Amino acid sequence: MTTPARHTVLLFSGGLDSTVLLADLRHRGDRVTALGCDYGSRHNRRELACARRICAAAGVPFHVLHLGFIGESFQSHLLKGGGELPNQPYDEASMRQTAVPFRNGIMLAAAAGFAESIGAQAVAIAAHGGDHAIYPDCREPFMRSMAAAMRHGTYDNILLLRPYVKRSKGWIVARGERLGVDFAKTWSCYAGGRLHCGTCGTCRERREAFREAGLPDPTRYAGGG
Amino acid sequence: MTTPARHTVLLFSGGLDSTVLLADLRHRGDRVTALGCDYGSRHNRRELACARRICAAAGVPFHVLHLGFIGESFQSHLLKGGGELPNQPYDEASMRQTAVPFRNGIMLAAAAGFAESIGAQAVAIAAHGGDHAIYPDCREPFMRSMAAAMRHGTYDNILLLRPYVKRSKGWIVARGERLGVDFAKTWSCYAGGRLHCGTCGTCRERREAFREAGLPDPTRYAGGG
Repeated sequence: MTTPARHTVLLFSGGLDSTVLLADLRHRGDRVTALGCDYGSRHNRRELACARRICAAAGVPFHVLHLGFIGESFQSHLLKGGGELPNQPYDEASMRQTAVPFRNGIMLAAAAGFAESIGAQAVAIAAHGGDHAIYPDCREPFMRSMAAAMRHGTYDNILLLRPYVKRSKGWIVARGERLGVDFAKTWSCYAGGRLHCGTCGTCRERREAFREAGLPDPTRYAGGG
Repeated sequence: MTTPARHTVLLFSGGLDSTVLLADLRHRGDRVTALGCDYGSRHNRRELACARRICAAAGVPFHVLHLGFIGESFQSHLLKGGGELPNQPYDEASMRQTAVPFRNGIMLAAAAGFAESIGAQAVAIAAHGGDHAIYPDCREPFMRSMAAAMRHGTYDNILLLRPYVKRSKGWIVARGERLGVDFAKTWSCYAGGRLHCGTCGTCRERREAFREAGLPDPTRYAGGG
């Protein structure tokens, strides 16, 4: 008799970080169901299309939760109908403008309920160390408390996996390279164009991550690389 | 100079418990915004209509978050399209059938994001002691962890108020009576009829609460009372 594989629901955006985590979880033997969140952001449509393609190629089930209530009811520049995106390096004030309040809390709670409803044992999120300074719901004090809430609040004591929470984005790129991830298929940009803009905050982070890892960046940026 | 009142977002269903908590928060001087959740349950439409009437009469702003993704994506007998409601006293197996997985986790996370987006300082929920045995996300270990997650995961350290978590429903009825709550305006039944059915699990709990408080039950039940 073999132990059945752990069934893990992965919050999956089609971005660099969650695509590396998808490869990592499968490398460790988990059975993965990928979960996208449609929460009304500008870059969401392109992201979800990317996510769907990556999952189809990997043979991983992909499900989308429609969190449109966030776009309807919350204030944020990241959401459709908000103001212009700040096109400067991320400082705290401009990051707070683009933050969806308690986004990871909402996505993890929804993922925990979804996981329990399909009989999965764990939820995974690719939040990483580079997010620490800017979003409170990416930091370990939040993650530790949310993990306890998910464990205590579900019948099956759903586990929260956040293996990259103390890693840098450069570390994640290096890990993805070892796992054979095709980074050109992933999407990060917040600007919503056909190519990565190369200048928004997440594009800058993406470029820096490849520099930090000492690896060539295969991304095609608008206006050249 | 006077200190501005605390602005609290109350998860509000128009049911007995949250209607008493609305009166209680206002009695304590909070400025309240009521937040209903449309999450696709059978009794939701009648509940939300009740909630809207109570708020209009009290002059309290009422907002509805559309959590339709729960009905679309989760399995539960409480949701439209699920099986028949168990019409027996609640035991663990039948209660689990009617549970929306991690419902309080999802509603509290959504309420925390909403509270931060409107500049409120706290979120309140009327979960009570009678829920302990049956729903894990009504118990204090969950509430304590979720409170920490909300505090750590928001810029403004949103507070979670759950003043009834160790109280019985009978205690809440007695408290509501002292605060002048009109119980006839509140709605509990899960069956979705024009009158309270009197026999579903929540109707039984409602009747028992008035008995426990030693107060007359003003509810009109189908088939008399």
